[in-house]
Amino acid sequence: MKLGRLNHIGVATPSIADSIAFYRETMGATSIVEPFELEGRHLLVAFIDTPTDSGMNGTQIELIEPLEGDTALTGFLQKNPLGGQHHLCYEVEDIAAAREWFEGQGKRILGPTRIGAHGTPIFFVHPKDMMGQLTEIMETPKEAH
Amino acid sequence: MKLGRLNHIGVATPSIADSIAFYRETMGATSIVEPFELEGRHLLVAFIDTPTDSGMNGTQIELIEPLEGDTALTGFLQKNPLGGQHHLCYEVEDIAAAREWFEGQGKRILGPTRIGAHGTPIFFVHPKDMMGQLTEIMETPKEAH
Repeated sequence: MKLGRLNHIGVATPSIADSIAFYRETMGATSIVEPFELEGRHLLVAFIDTPTDSGMNGTQIELIEPLEGDTALTGFLQKNPLGGQHHLCYEVEDIAAAREWFEGQGKRILGPTRIGAHGTPIFFVHPKDMMGQLTEIMETPKEAH
Repeated sequence: MKLGRLNHIGVATPSIADSIAFYRETMGATSIVEPFELEGRHLLVAFIDTPTDSGMNGTQIELIEPLEGDTALTGFLQKNPLGGQHHLCYEVEDIAAAREWFEGQGKRILGPTRIGAHGTPIFFVHPKDMMGQLTEIMETPKEAH
């Protein structure tokens, strides 16, 4: 496998509205994907775009807030009430090949491959098998991101 | 202030050697800045480059391992023995103006502005004032990074 683009950093928050205000007013963010519910996951998601030399196509900040019915992120926020860094997400060309690769290395994959917040297939790998980093692997969107 | 480039994600590790092996062998990293000691900080630092559409100039992973004499990162690793995400670093054009900006917003800045791992001035802002995210602000290197 070849290291792919660092698509986003997942940041847990008790309030996406407060986080967006923070990124806009304190950090000076200008390009924000407004909050939407991640279907079937009990999560509210929004994205902060960051710049590169060629546009606003840098690694995004993915804000995630738990909704009624969530357990995992709620547990994270109980330990970190202010929120904080939750996961890293790398892109791959082929999600099935990537899953096979991580399984072949004995890494624990958390649940089935599913559709993620960018509309492409994703899966998560257990942080205990990834040097403490909860890692999302996502298939690169076919269109420009 | 305008949101700058997400320069790197700081990742604490008990062993930079093990982390480099992990990023190379499991994640497929091909471009790695070999470990060096961060002068006066009791830290060993290395960088994993990530790709963008135009090269290996994406947001980096900054691996940090405590050396004898460190206390802060050692404390982090006592709580997270495997390591894990530690901080985010955003670039700014002018470090003095950025410091004034954050101070003006009542954010607690951790210590004086100093020279960071990329050789440009940096400072850290307290995670409790940044929605749980320990945030490094660094002046953009004048040359290509």
